[in-house]
Amino acid sequence: MTEPRRKRGAERTNNRGPAAIPQLPLRRVRNPYPPMALLSDDQIEAIHEASLHILENFGIELMSSRALALFEKAGAKVDHATQTVWLDRGLVDQALKTIRPTYTLTPRNPERKIHLGGDTINFTLVAGPPNVHDMERGRRAGNLRDYSDLVRLAQHFNCIHLIGNQVCAPVELPANSRHLDTYFANLTLTDKAFHVSAIGRGRALDGVRMMAISRGLTLDELARDPGVTTVISVNSPRRYDEFMSDGLMAMAEHGQSVAVTPFTLMGAMSPVTLAGALAQQNAEALFGVVLTQLVRPGAPVMYGAFTSNVDMRSGAPAFGTPENTKANIASGQLARRYNLPYRTTPGSASNAADAQGAYETMMALWGAVLGHGNLVYHAAGWQEGGLTASFEKFIIDVELIQHMMEFLKPIEVNEGELALDALGRVPTGGHFFGAQHTLERYSTAFYQPLLSNWHNFEAWREAGGLDATARATRVWKKALEEYVEPAMDASVREEMEAYVAKRKEEIGAGEP
Amino acid sequence: MTEPRRKRGAERTNNRGPAAIPQLPLRRVRNPYPPMALLSDDQIEAIHEASLHILENFGIELMSSRALALFEKAGAKVDHATQTVWLDRGLVDQALKTIRPTYTLTPRNPERKIHLGGDTINFTLVAGPPNVHDMERGRRAGNLRDYSDLVRLAQHFNCIHLIGNQVCAPVELPANSRHLDTYFANLTLTDKAFHVSAIGRGRALDGVRMMAISRGLTLDELARDPGVTTVISVNSPRRYDEFMSDGLMAMAEHGQSVAVTPFTLMGAMSPVTLAGALAQQNAEALFGVVLTQLVRPGAPVMYGAFTSNVDMRSGAPAFGTPENTKANIASGQLARRYNLPYRTTPGSASNAADAQGAYETMMALWGAVLGHGNLVYHAAGWQEGGLTASFEKFIIDVELIQHMMEFLKPIEVNEGELALDALGRVPTGGHFFGAQHTLERYSTAFYQPLLSNWHNFEAWREAGGLDATARATRVWKKALEEYVEPAMDASVREEMEAYVAKRKEEIGAGEP
Repeated sequence: MTEPRRKRGAERTNNRGPAAIPQLPLRRVRNPYPPMALLSDDQIEAIHEASLHILENFGIELMSSRALALFEKAGAKVDHATQTVWLDRGLVDQALKTIRPTYTLTPRNPERKIHLGGDTINFTLVAGPPNVHDMERGRRAGNLRDYSDLVRLAQHFNCIHLIGNQVCAPVELPANSRHLDTYFANLTLTDKAFHVSAIGRGRALDGVRMMAISRGLTLDELARDPGVTTVISVNSPRRYDEFMSDGLMAMAEHGQSVAVTPFTLMGAMSPVTLAGALAQQNAEALFGVVLTQLVRPGAPVMYGAFTSNVDMRSGAPAFGTPENTKANIASGQLARRYNLPYRTTPGSASNAADAQGAYETMMALWGAVLGHGNLVYHAAGWQEGGLTASFEKFIIDVELIQHMMEFLKPIEVNEGELALDALGRVPTGGHFFGAQHTLERYSTAFYQPLLSNWHNFEAWREAGGLDATARATRVWKKALEEYVEPAMDASVREEMEAYVAKRKEEIGAGEP
Repeated sequence: MTEPRRKRGAERTNNRGPAAIPQLPLRRVRNPYPPMALLSDDQIEAIHEASLHILENFGIELMSSRALALFEKAGAKVDHATQTVWLDRGLVDQALKTIRPTYTLTPRNPERKIHLGGDTINFTLVAGPPNVHDMERGRRAGNLRDYSDLVRLAQHFNCIHLIGNQVCAPVELPANSRHLDTYFANLTLTDKAFHVSAIGRGRALDGVRMMAISRGLTLDELARDPGVTTVISVNSPRRYDEFMSDGLMAMAEHGQSVAVTPFTLMGAMSPVTLAGALAQQNAEALFGVVLTQLVRPGAPVMYGAFTSNVDMRSGAPAFGTPENTKANIASGQLARRYNLPYRTTPGSASNAADAQGAYETMMALWGAVLGHGNLVYHAAGWQEGGLTASFEKFIIDVELIQHMMEFLKPIEVNEGELALDALGRVPTGGHFFGAQHTLERYSTAFYQPLLSNWHNFEAWREAGGLDATARATRVWKKALEEYVEPAMDASVREEMEAYVAKRKEEIGAGEP
């Protein structure tokens, strides 16, 4: 649990001066524009009906006897031998009456509270890669040192609102207890909300309990004011495995947030057509939503979407494609049909933090924004279709996210902004550099990038001629120097350390 | 005029096989989604009113006695000493009655006809850079050899609908006659519509006449069925210089297309605020629109927008910024208020064909598409804020444009697309690779990229581990090999050569 560098940032607080990396202030990001509609109302209803047809006639395989019993008790048709549930539309309607259209997640620092639903948009650190990459050290297996640096970066940049599930897997640690080390890192190196692993009940509950400890709450208090979320990935097509079902139920039971996310890669786990993949996604998502409400009516739950296509020649997943972008927008329409907060993803299949990585993520990110995603998951650092967390891609993505945040600031039109006085004073062919109107506003008028280089060619070449990827290396290194570890009460830290130690012993002794 | 390689492509026609670079077929691209609205109707009217205030009270400097006389005759208040025109709203309204909401440009190959206005979107090759760059030969001054290769690339890719004005300046040729060489290259190496230089009457008329020769038309016939366009850049703020005024009038006189484009970089040539810059842009654009209609009522004219911001620390222009993106969308709202076709631009300030180049252009390109641009100018190859035409950036941009074209294909929802049969047959946890539904559709279901690499990391590394920029080098080289020069009747070619020779003599003798 030793974190030798955890005081470093605090010691340096006073050294942060004008040379600090520019970034946008901490703020709740709202999407003021109407969501884009790619599907007509009729088309949405056709997809809705198709998804009910899937639930009612084809059924969902549910590999959990506890979950099967819940559905049976609620009146669904259940076959225990094949572990199949056929869900009629009445149960779906019933569940949709108790979901919450909006809710919040509160971490130990209440200023970092995030709002899910409505017009709020939140961005998360990439989650789940087995590997890590940066331009100096190359590609390597995930490990706790890199894990810690990546969550430090997520803490440092205000535009990252939530820590995703394991930014990389710390593979040097025992597989059955490493979630405790990553939760501890999330809770001590950041004060943001985070995503717990819901692969089984034990991992989920450890995250819930550690969040409760960090906030000094009982589990009941935490259930009334949730602090963590998880993603339940469906084993598409139409299968919920035991681990994910149990994780989902543990989260819902404790009033914590779940994003039910079918894994619908068109051509592989889903039909090759967008309408078919969306119908399947919708069926699988609604099934999970119903399960959360059977466990605990009112449990916070999101509609998750991960529909993209594969390369039909190799079967390899692709992201940031035109199809993925359309799915990100259309899925938002479906989520809003049910009044559910919407989780989406701006991925890329690129193996490098290069132009492809940038345009694929930008493409899908526009889909996420125009689709009014509330939780833009894997928003920073995603590389190789999610197999690698990249330090440089993280910086590129922070730049992309900040571009979007500024784009989402509405245009103001009023006397001061129309600038007629300045327009009348500056002579024809003249310039506005020295105009009073300019002088009063220039320092905040435009978005100031952290990565983009606007120098002319000669100045850029003299400064080394570094491309954006090479500059990103400098930025993440500087950000790690500027990083300040958020203070934590010593007694809270001790309680958390004791919890981790106790659980490691239990897990070592074979307890779940 | 020697073009040693002009037969190469034709000879290779039969060698084009399955390994050809994948690309989308030639098609008219329509934007089926509603335009995005960043401004309310009230805000649009406030900007409109402010622009009329500028025209009525501040006036426009117009450095052309012929143009001044036209305005005076039409009833505008004109001061010849200061060459200023004050334009009242009545003249603006009158001009807006005779403009064309849609029109076409027909090049020598009528299959390449482009539609301007309505829901059609066209993309052009970058125009105007003094320099050229590729990753193997580095940065160099523009020259006719590179010029020719770049227009060959524009000819090769179906998504490029129009050749912009001088993809690079062939600086080894005399400045006053090099436009003849570039027109000749446009007309022989491509069969697409192109952009003539309107820096003065002579350059404009040469382009008009050469297009007429290539189509075997008289100038009167060409006026009824235009084939070329130009951009009239305003010397913002509020100045039309003599060359551009004369060029505009020559084009309008001959019924050829003009995109009136104020050069409104916020903080430099425009107020630092978006509303002020848009008001200025609108005033300057409307002024040029009025001039076209005074010259020839019904002359084809576009509303051009080039509003972006500068780096307030250096004065350097920036593109693909959040402000630029908002301007691209809002300007579309203004153009549609006047029923004018809309020209916009997706630029980048990056000095390299890197991640910054990709995300800046993608950002502004989304603005162009959501703003319903009809002519997306400088859409491929733009680097260094327009100072360099990049071969690699061209390929990256073609990939971006094709992503957009596929995004603009609406989602179909019908029985076949909903795939319920396949969804019922594939077992839970199974896959759709072998499903009949997939087999019937897989080869055309998804967009096939020309640059994106979707291999897994190991396969990518074994193949050389090339990033997108390095792969782009291979793609443009292959495209030049695949290029086929469009056939031209020998007599037409001779007539064009004779025209060029005669004009070079005249220009050498001091004629304009």
